[in-house]
Amino acid sequence: MASVEIVAIGTEILLGQLVDTNSAHIARTLADSGIDVFAKHAVGDNALRLEEMLRGVLDRADGAITTGGLGPTVDDLTKDAVAAAVGTTLELHEPSVRAIEERFAALGRAGEIGENNRRQAILPKGAIVLPNGNGTAPGFIALRDDGKFVACMPGVPREMRPMLGEGVMPWLVARYGLRAAIYTRTLHTVGIAESDIDRRIEDLFRRLENPKIAVLAHEFRVDVKIMAKAENRAAAEALIRPVEAELRERIGRGIFGVDEQTLEGAIIEGLRERNLSVVTAESITGGAIADRFVRVPGASAAFRGGIVAYDNALKTSLLDVDAATIEGHGAVSEEVAVAMARGARARLSADLALATTGIAGPSGGTPDKPVGLVWFALAGEDGNVRTRRVTIPGDRDDIRRRATTLALNLLWRHLEPA
Amino acid sequence: MASVEIVAIGTEILLGQLVDTNSAHIARTLADSGIDVFAKHAVGDNALRLEEMLRGVLDRADGAITTGGLGPTVDDLTKDAVAAAVGTTLELHEPSVRAIEERFAALGRAGEIGENNRRQAILPKGAIVLPNGNGTAPGFIALRDDGKFVACMPGVPREMRPMLGEGVMPWLVARYGLRAAIYTRTLHTVGIAESDIDRRIEDLFRRLENPKIAVLAHEFRVDVKIMAKAENRAAAEALIRPVEAELRERIGRGIFGVDEQTLEGAIIEGLRERNLSVVTAESITGGAIADRFVRVPGASAAFRGGIVAYDNALKTSLLDVDAATIEGHGAVSEEVAVAMARGARARLSADLALATTGIAGPSGGTPDKPVGLVWFALAGEDGNVRTRRVTIPGDRDDIRRRATTLALNLLWRHLEPA
Repeated sequence: MASVEIVAIGTEILLGQLVDTNSAHIARTLADSGIDVFAKHAVGDNALRLEEMLRGVLDRADGAITTGGLGPTVDDLTKDAVAAAVGTTLELHEPSVRAIEERFAALGRAGEIGENNRRQAILPKGAIVLPNGNGTAPGFIALRDDGKFVACMPGVPREMRPMLGEGVMPWLVARYGLRAAIYTRTLHTVGIAESDIDRRIEDLFRRLENPKIAVLAHEFRVDVKIMAKAENRAAAEALIRPVEAELRERIGRGIFGVDEQTLEGAIIEGLRERNLSVVTAESITGGAIADRFVRVPGASAAFRGGIVAYDNALKTSLLDVDAATIEGHGAVSEEVAVAMARGARARLSADLALATTGIAGPSGGTPDKPVGLVWFALAGEDGNVRTRRVTIPGDRDDIRRRATTLALNLLWRHLEPA
Repeated sequence: MASVEIVAIGTEILLGQLVDTNSAHIARTLADSGIDVFAKHAVGDNALRLEEMLRGVLDRADGAITTGGLGPTVDDLTKDAVAAAVGTTLELHEPSVRAIEERFAALGRAGEIGENNRRQAILPKGAIVLPNGNGTAPGFIALRDDGKFVACMPGVPREMRPMLGEGVMPWLVARYGLRAAIYTRTLHTVGIAESDIDRRIEDLFRRLENPKIAVLAHEFRVDVKIMAKAENRAAAEALIRPVEAELRERIGRGIFGVDEQTLEGAIIEGLRERNLSVVTAESITGGAIADRFVRVPGASAAFRGGIVAYDNALKTSLLDVDAATIEGHGAVSEEVAVAMARGARARLSADLALATTGIAGPSGGTPDKPVGLVWFALAGEDGNVRTRRVTIPGDRDDIRRRATTLALNLLWRHLEPA
């Protein structure tokens, strides 16, 4: 069993000016593979303190995993500190120089490589190099004579995560012969309160040992996580399957997907299966629903497009919403939401149309129509329109984000199997 | 000048199952009062590892500030570890017993006090007790013989934050005679590579002591942060102002805003000043540009709306893109981008129109038109259209997110003062 401590490097992270999501991701990934995580740390861009910290980590654990401190603007202080902590020096790693040159060339910016970019290829002597497919700075694993290690990755999550999964983890698994690992399956639900889910599964929560279950609340989405400890994926599956079946029985249609599956992905799949197309008519959500659909690879099988009618005149000219309806009921009204959905369905020639109109604030609220009021309308394949009215708490961002998820939930529920 | 390290206690925090917002809050609060924060740590609920960590902290710094590990469900492991680290033992603190009893009585739950609640009043001998106005567990400051300290607070932010502000900070300020604080201003840039900015300001980066500057890369946005240590805001301003002027001189139009300002916010402001309106015609970005505009409070002053023409048929029916143009050049082409921008400007009656078309992947790429290829078009107030072609690396999400920022950058550059 290997033990590891995590070190996030960067003054902004230390001072909380930048939120460190990396450490938690690394800790979860390690724990899922059965590696003991003893501690997490953050230090500023200070070579001496970093070196001292790494020495301390290597006294206590088998290795340190660091993120950050490898960008082109900083000095080589991270690499200096790592080299000193494991007792080696730095040298230029030629293959990494070429990789950086190739990356700039691919971006059509070969002429922009500066000395500071080349410096990213200076690495501790003898280190195992971890290529960076999503940025210029390579990662590396430096080894001390006694076999303890410091694995360094960039701080940009998009660069760090694949490097962890494809570089660091396989190396750790091979080196420490890890066997019993934690396998998880996460069931995603929408439209059910956390307390409601709790009530439905409380006894399982208390009774189960392996797999364990945990409930995790996000905004307008609650996850139920099944965690099985097993020697391999097949053994874990055998443990997970009956628990998943029981959870599906108890939670029902609220579950829209598992693991990497998203609500928008489940909707696109459901629409495709039924050979239905959808379009959007957005005011308060301002393109965010369309954006969620387009995130799904292959979205074009079901999502045709949409209208962002932020200006009322566009609600009339693009969606045929009668100006008198807007005048009489206000832009944020059931009548306008219905007209937007009908207009989009007709003008964009789709089976279904989803419309939103609301008051995102911070100004524009009235006692009758407070900030956070949102009307949703869904025009169905039979031409009938169903509506929903919600008042969402929070600031402008909260309101718009939640309205987007609620709109998707309305469509998901519409796809309910007969 | 006092130096401090922060320790978050709890296995859930260590494993990333619970997000630690406390450490960042404490770090910012300390830094703003001119206290050096050397490091942040997280440890699990393990008395020996915690004691070892606290001993290490007290070797390096003047004190440790901890959060978490004081709740009624855990053992006394945190207090055991703290007492051991400062060389004392635990004893029952009578006034805290009474405070806990009073709190339960006030909540009408006097009968519910359990042994685990009373145990919360067991504290290191001689500690300074920090009353908890928002929960049952009191905090405390334990002192070692040499004057170094461990300040312990609960992990619930609602309990911790007032205790920090009203208990720990006044004690630190009095003890260390603190005066100077850190004031910051962050300049946001777009469209300039981090390495390019670095080249332009490298000498300042090395030379300046107070204020210091730091460069921070995000995706397609780089921040330059100015950090001044001063006795008050006015004195800090006097230090920051000439450095900001120098940075603006060197970086120029790449700077779009300061502190809380966003790129989309700067664009909406720029458009409003010039009395110009903008609309969008999105394919690959699928509503994300419109969404960015609508995030800005008051966006309606300049943003009218947009078309998400994901399906080619909608490019023709909603944006008047000639079907023959799509047929002849492909949907991802300069010609189609130009026609989309022209069509949106005319159909949605705006001064400016911004259009995107590209290949987000994972499939659909060809040698000529690889995944990541994006064409941008901006129809200007004179009716002329400028275009830009970029090939963006990364996965579908990366490509779409970066395309959105690049489109905004194109518009921002268009608003260049004459």
